[in-house]
Amino acid sequence: MGTLFLIPNTLGETALSGVIPSEVMRRIASLRVFASENPKNTRRYLKQIDGTLPLDEFTFLEVNEHSTPRDIEACLPYLASGDVGVISEAGCPGIADPGAELVALAHRHGYRVVPLVGPSSILLALIASGFNGQAFSFNGYLPVKSNERTRALKNYERQSALENRTQLFIETPYRNLKLLEEMLRTLHPDTLLSIACDLTTPGESVRTLPVREWKRQPLPDLHKRPAIFLFYVPQPNHRPK
Amino acid sequence: MGTLFLIPNTLGETALSGVIPSEVMRRIASLRVFASENPKNTRRYLKQIDGTLPLDEFTFLEVNEHSTPRDIEACLPYLASGDVGVISEAGCPGIADPGAELVALAHRHGYRVVPLVGPSSILLALIASGFNGQAFSFNGYLPVKSNERTRALKNYERQSALENRTQLFIETPYRNLKLLEEMLRTLHPDTLLSIACDLTTPGESVRTLPVREWKRQPLPDLHKRPAIFLFYVPQPNHRPK
Repeated sequence: MGTLFLIPNTLGETALSGVIPSEVMRRIASLRVFASENPKNTRRYLKQIDGTLPLDEFTFLEVNEHSTPRDIEACLPYLASGDVGVISEAGCPGIADPGAELVALAHRHGYRVVPLVGPSSILLALIASGFNGQAFSFNGYLPVKSNERTRALKNYERQSALENRTQLFIETPYRNLKLLEEMLRTLHPDTLLSIACDLTTPGESVRTLPVREWKRQPLPDLHKRPAIFLFYVPQPNHRPK
Repeated sequence: MGTLFLIPNTLGETALSGVIPSEVMRRIASLRVFASENPKNTRRYLKQIDGTLPLDEFTFLEVNEHSTPRDIEACLPYLASGDVGVISEAGCPGIADPGAELVALAHRHGYRVVPLVGPSSILLALIASGFNGQAFSFNGYLPVKSNERTRALKNYERQSALENRTQLFIETPYRNLKLLEEMLRTLHPDTLLSIACDLTTPGESVRTLPVREWKRQPLPDLHKRPAIFLFYVPQPNHRPK
């Protein structure tokens, strides 16, 4: 019986040696069957890892948002006869892609699942924010409609204050600036807001400031840059002197 | 002005090449000032990374749960004159250690903060569970008192169902089995429970089963093994055929 390996990808243009452990690269290069959203991108990634891999002999299974449960089950015979790697388009598989369904299926059929270490923009943004890491929530996208979004932001802010919890969000990159403007309009001036942008790539920046300070300066250029938004309501007894 | 680098550590006895990217190791070896909870362990880790480092010339700053804001501020002059690395006892700094306070202080003083890639048991457990990665909450420890703990579990379960959210917890390793027993007693039989144990080390195991299945088999040996507990209420329209 094979093992399902969860394979990390880079978060953008960057040297592999900075984000993928060497033993993980060797493991990836030892596999012959890969499931991913875009086999063409997966081939390019494998070439980067080892230019001598005989990619024409490899099997590439497509698993995307349109895959039916039956499509995903089509991966099972490959697991029955050997190891399979599941790769995300960026970062760790199973966070914002259909990889999680394949993992769930593997568990239901008793296959071993092994996660390999690599970059996660959510985790890197969390630790770089300086916010509480002992209670945090990744909430994905906020509602699109303005009034629902405002209400959701206020609810998440209240929860942060009550539970001493860090709140994390993503946005479609071309809407980043709009989200930032709404956060600055809606959140309390004392709430701390962190923006982590282009993580692990040359343009990386992580900035944490109270909302009131963000409002005083020119807004950062976030347009079409992959970003994580985090906020945290500082607790009275943890507030700096 | 220096940069504060967030340095990953291993999650237990394991080869560095499987969990720390080579460029991250080179970056660690280039630093001369380190903040950590236990300088003795930090020295041992640095020796593992590069046995030729002149550790006697390095500066080790102790930052632990007893550190006052003033103690943490004592790190600032080092940042003013050069780079500083903050290291956790295990995994990524700032999740379950006082590193986050130093990061917050660095942001308040305008220093650059750079998170380096390494293993995070929370993130690895999440992707290996097969649960929803688009909405998840890390909740740390559950309340200790039995009735409060039962109530908290039920609330987190209700939230998982309502928000399609994965819930993650940790426990003091010698209490793992007790927590598992309470989860099996309290959670709905259809709720999926995943236990990730000894991640990235030779004893690694990740197992996801409905609560009803966990109850039918001998409980796993979790005693004193570092573990992450995750549960997820499967959504009606995502349920497998």
